Parts: sequence; structure tokens; C-alpha cells
Amino acid sequence: MPQRIAVIPGDGIGVEVTWAARQVLDAVTRKHGVPFTYDEYDWSCQRYAAAGEMMPADAIERLRPYDAILLGAVGWPGVPDHVSLWGLLIPIRRAFRQYVNLRPIRVFEGVRSPLRDAGPEVDFVVIRENVEGEYSEIGGRLNRGFPDEFAVQESVFTRPGVTRIARFAFELAATRRSHVTSATKSNGIVHTLPFWDEVVAEVAGEFPGVRTQSEHIDALAAKVVLDPGRFDVIVASNLFGDILSDLAAAVAGSIGIAPSANLDPTRTHPSMFEPVHGSAPDIAGQGIANPVGAVWSAALMLEHLGHPAAAADVMAAVEATLAAPETRTRDLGGTADTAAVVSSLVAHLG
Amino acid sequence: MPQRIAVIPGDGIGVEVTWAARQVLDAVTRKHGVPFTYDEYDWSCQRYAAAGEMMPADAIERLRPYDAILLGAVGWPGVPDHVSLWGLLIPIRRAFRQYVNLRPIRVFEGVRSPLRDAGPEVDFVVIRENVEGEYSEIGGRLNRGFPDEFAVQESVFTRPGVTRIARFAFELAATRRSHVTSATKSNGIVHTLPFWDEVVAEVAGEFPGVRTQSEHIDALAAKVVLDPGRFDVIVASNLFGDILSDLAAAVAGSIGIAPSANLDPTRTHPSMFEPVHGSAPDIAGQGIANPVGAVWSAALMLEHLGHPAAAADVMAAVEATLAAPETRTRDLGGTADTAAVVSSLVAHLG
Ligand SMILES: CC(C)[C@H](C(=O)O)[C@@H](O)C(=O)O
Ligand SMILES: CC(C)[C@H](C(=O)O)[C@@H](O)C(=O)O
Repeated sequence: MPQRIAVIPGDGIGVEVTWAARQVLDAVTRKHGVPFTYDEYDWSCQRYAAAGEMMPADAIERLRPYDAILLGAVGWPGVPDHVSLWGLLIPIRRAFRQYVNLRPIRVFEGVRSPLRDAGPEVDFVVIRENVEGEYSEIGGRLNRGFPDEFAVQESVFTRPGVTRIARFAFELAATRRSHVTSATKSNGIVHTLPFWDEVVAEVAGEFPGVRTQSEHIDALAAKVVLDPGRFDVIVASNLFGDILSDLAAAVAGSIGIAPSANLDPTRTHPSMFEPVHGSAPDIAGQGIANPVGAVWSAALMLEHLGHPAAAADVMAAVEATLAAPETRTRDLGGTADTAAVVSSLVAHLG
Repeated sequence: MPQRIAVIPGDGIGVEVTWAARQVLDAVTRKHGVPFTYDEYDWSCQRYAAAGEMMPADAIERLRPYDAILLGAVGWPGVPDHVSLWGLLIPIRRAFRQYVNLRPIRVFEGVRSPLRDAGPEVDFVVIRENVEGEYSEIGGRLNRGFPDEFAVQESVFTRPGVTRIARFAFELAATRRSHVTSATKSNGIVHTLPFWDEVVAEVAGEFPGVRTQSEHIDALAAKVVLDPGRFDVIVASNLFGDILSDLAAAVAGSIGIAPSANLDPTRTHPSMFEPVHGSAPDIAGQGIANPVGAVWSAALMLEHLGHPAAAADVMAAVEATLAAPETRTRDLGGTADTAAVVSSLVAHLG
């Protein structure tokens, strides 16, 4: 039985990089014989402009039977974020309890980090909590429009929520270099983050073979720049994980490369795979977007769906393609367009 | 009438760098004839160990009559943050409505940024909101110790609070390169940060000569690494300003250099000046701490107290001292100790 993939290219370069990822997946199917069926959905800001909604009312029900979701990017100038993001991306993350946002960071050969001293030793994973924390919808405003107006928003950290993300991070670290860094700010944010620290410490106790360290987010952001090679797995709340993973992607040389997996590790619901970059209106439609973020995301999907050899093969093709100057896109200082990168990837996949 | 300074050296290298700043201030007084009187307070973790409190119950009342407060660093292993920080640093910031935390960032000649391409064009100021936002004490826990335990914490943004910090940032930008970047995350944190954006946009309307731009904190953190030369003034909430300023200090080559001013711009209460670095237990007592963060903080104090020529003179001494290899401390790749840096600074002020 082929595994079923829902494809949501979305907006802007989302469409271009999703096409690229599909070409690579087709090459994988030819080579490894892993069969997939794909259904493509046009849910996007363009659809919103035409139909008044990013996705249909039954979108979540339609996505539910799939084995995985491959997403390009959502968002477009003129469409407010509460429509584009809260009308598609975030509801999917939440409805399917994709409580892990996994974001690997590597400095590849041929990719120039903005840091003087960052090389192949930079290889870590940010494990971001993806359904609670600072991104809660609880809050509002009082005295709207008056001089004494104020807005409040509640961060919510639950014991099950923190426990499961911490366990995921420690389990992952146990398969890697056995080191977890936990992002906190318990010295300034005195209710939620001391609780985060406590629960992470309890989970750490279940993994005596994994070293662990807690760092305040301000110092941690600085260390990602000063010494990115020291990290193995970073576990962080929704907001801190968001900040650290974008920062780390910049340190690794380009946000165009960075992938992400929104995982439901219980496998009750489909997981979703998307590049970290957005729809990039400034370069959309020119065929020059870097497809590596989307392709690496597809490799994470292959792994999740039980095809580790195929995933490793895709990553070898990515490595070879980035190492060759003629198949690097502009964001990496090259001149290749998206199609040239795809040709190289497909050629390496034989 | 001499201006009155309360000096709180605090813990660890706080004591060493405050001594250094005092030497420099004495040299300023000799040269420029600006007279100060100093009272030193031993409020610290050491005092806590002996007396059970970081500072006496009437500390705020005792500090109130001063023209400024010069702080070294607080915090020591074994003393929990809620004691050391919430027993000294944060109450002072709040009691004296030091609602601006001003943190300038520069890449000095002779200081090596971890970034390949960061030079003297990097010169910006982070204006951090310092008394509300994410660091609110509102929140708590339910079901403590049970599987359904959770913690909540409320971020609070008020119209007066956001208006005054934004005005401060725009006024400052008008005296510099007329550009303000506002840190937000209104796409994910949907109550407080859209409100922040609205109020900042209103204030921007009062300053037609200042260009303004809003960036999500994840992308902004990445840009601080990818293109730090683009910024002039960054205005940010309490948490975002904390993260960005530490990150920026790392980009500028050393947290040992970074200064901060906790300002009450209404001048109703004393303002407080402190280096960004902490008490650094690992190198405390060795006489090797970099005193530049504290000295630069003292220069910010001179400016605040109405002595701009003296402040400029201190900064010229700092520049000359950092430019000379033999007067750079270890964090900057040199071998100088604190005293050698002080001698150089005092000689330049000679
Ligand atoms: C120690 C901590 C509470 C403090 C803060 O976050 O305000 C520090 O990081 C700072 O930036 O002054
Ligand atoms: C667009 C935004 C809401 C989203 C997030 O912060 O979760 C994005 O930055 C991401 O990291 O996937």
C-alpha cells in the first residue's frame, strides 16, 4: 500500500520549493521503490482572496487520513497573519497535536557561515515545543482606544506538555552525542520557566546517560553565535525554539536550507514537514528559490515514514549538490536556479 | 554641589569592575573638574549569606536621594535568582521606574567579532522596555505535584508603557541615523504583540523624519547576525530586548564590553548604570575581568548627569585602550589584567 501524502504548496516560493521536493521524492521512488500517492491542495492566500478562507471548513477532516503533510510556505503581503497563519499553519499543528517542532542545523561543506569559525562540527537539533507555551490564545485587551488601554496574554506550560517535549529531546540525544541544553529564562520569567526547569530536570533524571545543562535564553542566543559547535540537542519552549532555530539557521549560512518537522510522535495524527523559510514575496515567481529547505524537510518525512535509507540518500544528494559551486543558489553566493539544483539532486539520486 | 552616586559593587567580578569604573571616574573628576560624592553599599549575595537579605528593608528609600546608581553585578552560585535578582536588581529597576534599558552596541577597532563581516559600521542601540511586558509577576501554578499541574504567566503591555518606550526610541533615533526597528512576534503571540505594533505605529506617526520597520523576533535575531550594520535603534519588549542585547553583545565581540543604562527619563528617580555581564564566578577574584562594560556604563552615567564632554573623553580612552593589543583582556584574546586596562584608561584621560 503506498503511503498517502497531502501536499500544500501554499504561497510564493512555497509552490516552487514544493515542486522541487516532489521531483526529489519521485526520484526516491524510482530508486528505492518506496511508493507514495500525492493529493495536492491549493490552500493559500490566493485561495483566501478568491474564496474568503485559507482552507475549507472541513480541511482538518480531509487531512486526517494522510500519512504525512508536505507544506511549502504560507503568507502573503496584504493578508494579515491572523488569517494566513492562524487560518492554516497553526490550526494544523494544533489539531494534529504536532507537539514537536524538530529543526536540525548543520553547516554543510560549500556553505559559508557568517561566523568565522563555524564548520562541519556544527550539527545540532532544536526541539521546539509546538502547541502550548507563549503561543496561547488566552488573553485580550481592556479599555480599547483609551489612554489606560492594556493587553495581556497568558503563557501556559503544562506538566504533560513539558514532560513529553523533554522526553522527546532526551530520547533523541541518546541516539546522538548525549547532550541536552534546555532553554530557560527562569531568572526573569518567574512562574512558567521555573516550572519548565523543574519538569525538564525530572525528565533528565530518567536519562542518566545524557548530560544536561540549562541556559538562559539571552546567554544561549549569544552562545549559538559564539560557539555553535558545542550543542547537540536544544530543547526549548514554543517562542524560544522559534527564535533559536531561526538564529541557528542564519548561523548555518542560509535560512533557505533549514528544514522542519512538525511531529506527532504518538503517530495518532499525520505529521507535517515544511521548510523554515517563508513565502519570500521578493523573489517569488522567479524560479530562483533555494529548494534545499523543502528537500531536507522531505528527507525528514522519509525518515518519519520509515524509510531511513532513502532519507540518507537524499541527504547525500543535498551534501554533494551544496558542495558544488555551480549548483548553489544565490542566497549561498551561487548563481544556480531552482531547476538546476533539482537536476543535480535528481542526478545524484541516480 | 557635587552629584551623589550610590555604588553597589555586588558580587564576583562586579566588585572588580566597579573599582575600575571608580578609578576612571576619579580621573574624569581630576581632568574635567566634575565633582561627585560616592557612597558604597555592600548589598550582595555575600550580605545575603550573612544577613538573610540582599539589601536592607529601607534600601529603596536610602537610594532615592541619589543622582545615580552605579552597579557591578549580582548573583552567586547557591543563591537562587529569585533571591539575588528579585531581591536587588529588579526591585530597583521597578521602584525607580527605570522604564528604559538602553544598551549600545559597537564593534571597536581591535575587537574581533565572531562574524566575518562585522566592522566599525556596526553601531546601534537596543532600547529595551524595562518594567512591564513578559517579566510580570502575575501568574502561578495549579495542581502542584499532580499529573495535571500547570503554570501560567501573564505578559502585560500597557498603552502608557509602550508609548513611552517607543517615544524614547524614536527621539533617540532622531539624534542618530533616524531609523527604528521594532521587535515583534505578532504573528504568533496574538494579543500583546499586535497591541505593541499598533502603539509603536502611532508613535512612529509623531516622527515623520524617522524611518521605521517592524521585524518578527525570530527573523530579527537572524538579521543581527547576518547584517548587524543595518540597525540604528532597535526598540523591544522586556524579553525581546534582553535576548537581542545579549546576542548583539556577542556579535560585537565580547559581553565584557557591553554597558547598560536603566533610565528613568523623567528624572523623578535615580537611574542605574551597570555592565551587561554578570558576576562571572569562574574568573572572579583573579583580577582579570574586562572592566570596559562597567567603564562604558560609567560613561553613560556621565552623559545622563549632564557631562557629555567627559563621557566622550572616557569613550575615546576606551577606544584607544581596546585598539592596543597590550591592553586587551583575555575575553578579547589579549593578556592584560583589569589593572592594566585601568592604567591605560587613566593615562589616556591624563
Ligand atoms: C538577570 C536577569 C533577570 C536580567 C534580565 O533579564 O533582565 C539580565 O539578564 C539583564 O539583562 O539585565
Ligand atoms: C509564522 C510563525 C507563526 C511561525 C511560528 O513562529 O511558529 C514561524 O515563524 C515558524 O517558525 O514556523
